[in-house]
Parts: sequence; structure tokens; C-alpha cells
Amino acid sequence: MNALKIVKIGGNIIDDEEALSSFLSSFSKIKSPKILVHGGGKLATHLAHKMGVEVKMIEGRRVTDADTLDIITMVYAGKINKNIIAKLQSNQCNSIGFTGADGNSIVSVKRPTTPIDYGYAGDVVKVNTDTLEILLNANITPVFSAITHDENGQLLNTNADTIASELAIAFAKLFYVELYFCFEKNGVLQNINDDNSVIENINTNTYQKLIKEGVIAEGMLPKLKNCFHAIEQQVTKVCIGKPEMLFSTTSKHTTIQA
Amino acid sequence: MNALKIVKIGGNIIDDEEALSSFLSSFSKIKSPKILVHGGGKLATHLAHKMGVEVKMIEGRRVTDADTLDIITMVYAGKINKNIIAKLQSNQCNSIGFTGADGNSIVSVKRPTTPIDYGYAGDVVKVNTDTLEILLNANITPVFSAITHDENGQLLNTNADTIASELAIAFAKLFYVELYFCFEKNGVLQNINDDNSVIENINTNTYQKLIKEGVIAEGMLPKLKNCFHAIEQQVTKVCIGKPEMLFSTTSKHTTIQA
Repeated sequence: MNALKIVKIGGNIIDDEEALSSFLSSFSKIKSPKILVHGGGKLATHLAHKMGVEVKMIEGRRVTDADTLDIITMVYAGKINKNIIAKLQSNQCNSIGFTGADGNSIVSVKRPTTPIDYGYAGDVVKVNTDTLEILLNANITPVFSAITHDENGQLLNTNADTIASELAIAFAKLFYVELYFCFEKNGVLQNINDDNSVIENINTNTYQKLIKEGVIAEGMLPKLKNCFHAIEQQVTKVCIGKPEMLFSTTSKHTTIQA
Repeated sequence: MNALKIVKIGGNIIDDEEALSSFLSSFSKIKSPKILVHGGGKLATHLAHKMGVEVKMIEGRRVTDADTLDIITMVYAGKINKNIIAKLQSNQCNSIGFTGADGNSIVSVKRPTTPIDYGYAGDVVKVNTDTLEILLNANITPVFSAITHDENGQLLNTNADTIASELAIAFAKLFYVELYFCFEKNGVLQNINDDNSVIENINTNTYQKLIKEGVIAEGMLPKLKNCFHAIEQQVTKVCIGKPEMLFSTTSKHTTIQA
């Protein structure tokens, strides 16, 4: 089996034009098959304000009414995704923009409306790798925005971390998958105020210990749950840290393995 | 060689949700390889108004400043394209949304700024069929919004009719290409006020005669020029009419052949 790198970037890169350009230039140089998954950043909220659409959040998650879904589709799958594709092409990285609807690649169901109605939010139920595999074999890089569909014509807003890990799990049957979550910190920190206190390796045993010790704080817990879910489903390794971890062997980050 | 149908739909279908659904349901049933190209309709203008971005037109063509390019990218490649893809998938038509940047499929150059500066408007210089051919062979339908790129990271607004005919010309080396321009009339009309006075066949000779007789009016002339350009470049035939021409053998339309 070959290696496949699946890389998720978040708002901190998307919102910074220079950081994004620099990242995409380096990302283009990765030789192995690769998939990029991007979040949305602040642009969707800006556009909602401009259009007079109310932004509703419950427990840190966006409530997606019909107007908000339109905005997300326009910003994520339109502006952000297509500008990323154009920049990758200018770096000789042949790429195609995807939502889960494209190639029927990621199917989700609308989240139940009780106890909380999140509107047009989708929970992933199936990943179809066929079309993506054809493209990876042709040296083409799929670039996903965080939108899926329900196979009945409805687009659904879906968490970008979930998309990245579900893609990783589905491809674990075909590749040695390395999953990279890029964010603003150097990884899981022993001391949240010290960006150099990176815990470089976590496995199933030390994970439980870190939870008991209270080292893994509230914000980090869903992220790590997501990582271990992928590891349990045969993803080779998951790395968390700044994007530099992909391009530099000396950049500190957290590696999660079974 | 196999047959390939390239179908362009315009604003009159895009702006009418019911007409679009009905068209996509019928389009999905076409068995041969096919490519869909869509225009933008009124949605981009609506969004520009909502966002307070001025819509500038010169000689019927949109002037694309940076804000307008953002709006077009959001509306065409985001909202319209992704909703079309979701609807096609619900009709079991496996499809992927494209701009010219995706798969580096359509390269253009920014139009010269003299005599008129149209801003980020692109004139097509190259079509790369490789990636599209892989998808067509895998029974996947590419769906193009009217955006291209310059290979240097810049997206460019491009006429949808031009995209359809340039795709048709590029694929004429690989397929018997039939190019369909769907619009609100039954075709080229002998009498512009009588939608039943369709001129059913036009060839190079009768074309010149119709121009001399003044039958081909101003609005129709660029459309037909585009058609004959495709015919000269080995496209098998070009059809102009209502979308029904694709699905019904009795629906009147104009067929253009050498």
C-alpha cells in the first residue's frame, strides 16, 4: 500500500492570505497522494453580517438555517475553495474542488432536531472512495470544503474535522493514511500557556492517563476523540500541530498512534 | 469515436427552481457521456445589490471588478453549481462541479484593458481534456460554471457560451461532439415575433444568405458566430432551442451543421 496524506487546515490559515499562500506553496511540493480539507474561517460570518443574516451559535456550533446554508455554500465551496484551487494550480499542483455532493463522495444525514435543532447540519454516514481514488491515481489532489449532501438533493453543513477523519478512515482500506490536523498551537500541550510543552506522542494508554490527570482540557477533548476514532479504524497515524509539521522535520507536534 | 453531448443552460432555467429541477431530472437520463455548462442568471446581481456592490455593464457585458469576481465565484461556483450537483446526484447522475481552475481544465488570459476595461474577464486560450476524459470514461458528468483561471492563481469571469464551445472544440478530437445551446426560444426564427417560425437547419451557405436577408438579428449574430466557429473546428453539430430539444424528437429547434 502507498501512503496518503490527508491534511485539514482551519480558519487561522484561511483568514490570513499570506499564510494561506505560503502553506499552499509548501503543500504543493508534497510528492505522495494527498487530500486537503479546509474549514471556513471568518468570511462566512462577515458575509452573513453584510447580508443581514443573523448568525446563531449553540454550544460553539453554527445553527444552519436555509440562508446560512446558502452563505456557507457560497463562501466555502465558492470563494475559498476555488481560490485555493487556482493557487494550487499556480504551484503546479493539479487539484479539483469537492463538496461531499461532488462524485457522491460524502453522504450525510440531517442531524436530528432534538434536543437541539442545528438546521441543515449533516452527520456523515458514508464515504465513497471510487472517484477520489481515480483522481489520486492520476496525481490529482481533491480539495474538500466542509459541505456534504444527503443523496436527496439537499446540501448539508458538516464539521471539517469530521470530514477529514471520515475520509481518512475510508481510505485506510486502500492506503497507509496519515491524518494531519493543522491549527494555531504546536500540538497537545502539557501546560496550555507554554506552546513549547508539547506532548510529542500519545497512544491509547497515555491518552487515558492524560484525561485522568486533567491535562487534556475541554476544547481539546473532542479533537482527540476524533483522532482516536480514526486510529481505532486503522488510520496509521494522526498528527496535530502547526502546518510547519508537514514540511519540517524539526517542527514540534503531537503524534497519535495506537 | 463515441458521441459526447455538451449542453449549455442559461439564466432562464437557472432562475426558475421548478424548471431547473425538471431539466436536471431529464438531463440525468441521457445515457451518452455529457458535460453541462451553466450561466449565472439573476442571482449574482441580487447578491451584489444586497452587498452594496455596484453592477456595471458595458455593451451588455458585466464589468468584473474584484468584489464582483468574488460574488460571481460565490454564486456561480458555490450556490448554483453545488445545488445542481446535489440535484443530479439525487437523480443518480454522478457528477463533479468544475471551474476552469479545477483540473486545470480551462486556461484563459485576462482581457486587454483597451479599448474597454472589463476587469477580471478571461478569454479562453487552452482547454486540457485529460482529467475530464478520465471522468467521462468513469461515467461521471462534469458540470462547469463560467469561471476560468490564468494558471497564475487568478480566477477570471468567462462567457458561458464560450466555455461550452471551447470545450466542444477541444473534445472534437476525441468524440463526435454535439453542442446544445438551450435558451428561451425555439431556435433561430424567420419571424422574431413567431416562436413557431423556426429555421430548422442552417449550414454555411444558408447562414450567409440569412445574414444578407437581415433574418439573423443583432442579438442572434454573436451566438451563431460562436456556433459556426465550433462547426469549423470539427464539432459534429450545434443545436439551438428550448431544453426540450434534448429530450423530445418532436421539439422544434435549429440544427447547425457544415
